[in-house]
Parts: sequence; structure tokens; C-alpha cells
Amino acid sequence: MNLHAPRAASDMADGQAVRLACRAGRISGTTAGLAPGYVQGNLVILPKDDATDFLRFAQANPKPCPIIGVSDPGDPHIPALGLDLDIRTDLPGYRIWRNGECVAETGDVGAYWRDDLVSFVIGCSYSFEEALVEDGIEIRHITENKKVPMFRTSIATKPAGRFHGPLVVSMRPLKPADAIRAVQITSRYPAVHGAPVHIGLPAQIGVADVRRPDYGDAVTVNDDELPVFWACGVTPQAALVASKPEFAITHSPGSMLVTDLKNRGYAVI
Amino acid sequence: MNLHAPRAASDMADGQAVRLACRAGRISGTTAGLAPGYVQGNLVILPKDDATDFLRFAQANPKPCPIIGVSDPGDPHIPALGLDLDIRTDLPGYRIWRNGECVAETGDVGAYWRDDLVSFVIGCSYSFEEALVEDGIEIRHITENKKVPMFRTSIATKPAGRFHGPLVVSMRPLKPADAIRAVQITSRYPAVHGAPVHIGLPAQIGVADVRRPDYGDAVTVNDDELPVFWACGVTPQAALVASKPEFAITHSPGSMLVTDLKNRGYAVI
Repeated sequence: MNLHAPRAASDMADGQAVRLACRAGRISGTTAGLAPGYVQGNLVILPKDDATDFLRFAQANPKPCPIIGVSDPGDPHIPALGLDLDIRTDLPGYRIWRNGECVAETGDVGAYWRDDLVSFVIGCSYSFEEALVEDGIEIRHITENKKVPMFRTSIATKPAGRFHGPLVVSMRPLKPADAIRAVQITSRYPAVHGAPVHIGLPAQIGVADVRRPDYGDAVTVNDDELPVFWACGVTPQAALVASKPEFAITHSPGSMLVTDLKNRGYAVI
Repeated sequence: MNLHAPRAASDMADGQAVRLACRAGRISGTTAGLAPGYVQGNLVILPKDDATDFLRFAQANPKPCPIIGVSDPGDPHIPALGLDLDIRTDLPGYRIWRNGECVAETGDVGAYWRDDLVSFVIGCSYSFEEALVEDGIEIRHITENKKVPMFRTSIATKPAGRFHGPLVVSMRPLKPADAIRAVQITSRYPAVHGAPVHIGLPAQIGVADVRRPDYGDAVTVNDDELPVFWACGVTPQAALVASKPEFAITHSPGSMLVTDLKNRGYAVI
């Protein structure tokens, strides 16, 4: 499976280059592997009336929903994440949601923009995956050129206001020693999901078959590996389905916002 | 199972109190739970001719053999671990080894002392167990009042000079979320074995049945738990068996040296 067509190196060098290429329509599909070293983020855009509830929801569920940037209402810019950033155009793909259903996918949300929209950018596992790969740990969906497998769990998020729903997790199969090392490494990155939430006994969290994900792609899981589960930034999309707000915009899974921040800046120790 | 007879509170208050009680013959058996907060250690005593090889062995295998104190040859004192400490009398129980066989157990090694003996004190999991318990994690062998179960693994230590042998591990069954937390907590204590060496797939390290330990006691392992394995300070005793040095003294398993150092002083972050 090839996730995207060949891209110009100049469009992949840093966060701004990726955003400009998205804005010009030269990049679609996943942002995995683009702008190495730069923080990527999940996106949730909600009308101001729902934004306060969502902020409380995110703060009550910091492992799946670590907020790394918020816009002013109606302002499509988030200068703290990129001086020229335009949240309406700078991702490769968006989903439009009405009453908890995804009703459209698009590469530009200008036609949907409203002056009461608040953008939330949420940390993404791409940041800690970079640290794992640098440590020599094989990340299966990367070597198999797939999207990370994700699962809705039987663990409920903590509800806040109108928002509730299941915790969504991403899964990486790891040899036991690598799993231990991965706990150490990802613990350094609490702003991008941090340490795993589960390891080894998927039925305990409502995952019946690690080879049949609810989102993303299935990957090989070998007998000498443990499935290791991290809280996932797709959790807000499961909350949109469960909570049915009137209107929302999110990124398309895998098509993240690439920022000007560096992953290494998120390491707490 | 009751590991020891009732003891006077004054004999258990701190490291020095425990050592003086051992010296006077008032304490035998395990030191588990004595002098809370104080570092306990495994003991290996070897003639000077073998001591250099053992030092290299320990430094090549820092997870099972983290050295926290070494004596001068022939000197039964290690002031860095306790000003009045006398290594010949201050443990509840010792093993005497000849050519790789345990030939005697005693509460006082004065009769075996030689002026060429070097004492090595090696960090012990009691230190990190205290941190786990303080975090609210149940340690099964503590709640079941047993010795920690230990296993000879199929993992070879790195040989050095005459010393070689299998890695010995201790095992604690933990729920997956507690196992992840335990990796985080024990990673703070590299001088007392640090993070686990294995989790979840015991056959991979040559452990056929987690309910049949090679040393210590069997503990309950529930279906909703993963066996988590840490490098163990009994590894040097397995090396004595494998390497057959002419003479050695060790502690009896569970009967540790209690020092004047504090566990919290070993936390690196």
C-alpha cells in the first residue's frame, strides 16, 4: 500500500514547507514522515458555543487529548504553532461533521468557515514515534508503510459538558524489551500522549482482535511481540460520533497539521 | 507462611538498629520490611585474587549486579554504607561457598574470615519495591507474605574473567496499567536494578512456568496480570555455581545487609 504519491523534497523539509504545499494543493494523504523533527497535530474545530465544553473534555482526558494550541474564535491563525499558519488550508485533508456524522472530506475548509469557530490542535503520536525510531525500535506500521492501527476501547473518557465517548488507542506490536524501552521513551513526551495506557492483554480494554482495527490499517503482529496501546488523538472524533454536536471540522486520520515546533522540545526530561 | 518470628520495634527502626540486632543474634531470616526507607543490599565476598574478575563481571552486568559498596581487602568494614558496619556479623544469614557449592549456612562468618577477602554489596529490589508500594501498586509476594519468586533465565550474563552464568530475574505479577507505571517508577532507580528486563512472554527468556520459581516462593498470578521480570541480585550466586571459584561468602537469599543509606537517595530523577 502506498499512502501518497511522490512529493518534492522542498515540500517536505520543514513545517512551513509542508503547510505551503498543502495550501497550494500539492500534498494530499498522510503527513507521516514529512518534515522530520517537526511536531504534527490532530485538529478539532468547533463553534464557540461548544468550544468551552470541548476544552474541559480535553483537560479531563489529557492522555488522548493533549492540547498544544488553541485559536481565538473566528481566527484561522494560530501563530504559536506557525507564524503564517492558516488552519483552513494547511492540512492535506479535513472531515466535515454534522450531528455526529462525517458528511464530507475536503482539502480546504474555506467554504465551511464561520466567524465563531475555535480550532484545537492536539498532540500526535508521530512525535514520540520519531523518538522510538531514533532509539532503534521498529515501528511496524512504518516499516509496512501503513497507517497506525487504532481501536475504540471499552474504556470511557471522562465526560465534560456535552462531550463523552470511548477512549481510542493506537497499537504498536513490540518485543517485550522494546515495549519496556518504549514506556521509558514515551514517558518523556506527556504532551504527545505520553506512556502507553495498556500492554499485552487487549481483551481487558475491549479489543477483541488486534489484527482488526477500527481505524487505520491492520499490521503484522508476531507471536514474540506484545501489543502496546497508546491513547490516540482520534479520540475526539469518536467523541463527535457519540456526542453529536451540530457542527465540527477535524483533520482526516493521518493528514495532520504540521507545525513549526520541534518534537525534541516536548521532551520533559 | 510466616517468614520470621516477632521482632522488637527498636531492632527494626533503621539500618544501624537492624545491624546491631543481627550482630547480637536477635534477628534471623528475611530482612524484608525492616528499617523502612533504608537501602538493603545483596552480598558477595571473594578472595582478592577473584575480586578483580568479579568487579569486571559486575560492571559488565550492571542490571543484575549494581555495586553500591566495596570493601578494602581484608577489611570487614564498609564505612560508606554504615559507619559501624561489620560485614562478618551484621546480616541475619550467610552462605559459605566452596568450588561453586553452598557448603554451609551461618549467622556469623567470623570463623571463615580471611585477610584477603573483598566484600561487594549489590543493590536490591527492596528499594524499588518500596517506591512501587508507595505509589499504590500491590506487590504480590509482600501481600502474600512470601519471598519474591526468582528464576534462572536462558539469558547469559556477559562473562568477565572466570565469572559467567545465567541472568537470574525476580518476578512480580502486575495488571497491565500497573506494569506500565512500574516501568516508569523503577526506571528512576538504576542503582537497584532499574527498569524490568522482560514483560509478559516468559517462555522467551526460558521461564517455563511462572508459578514454579527456581529461588524464593511461588505467588499467585491471575489471568488479568502480566508477569514482569527484573534483573536480580541473586545472579552472582548463579555465577558462583557456574564459575566454581574456590571460596566465596554470600548473604542467604532474603537476608540482606541493611545500610544507613536512604532509598530515596537512589532516585535519579
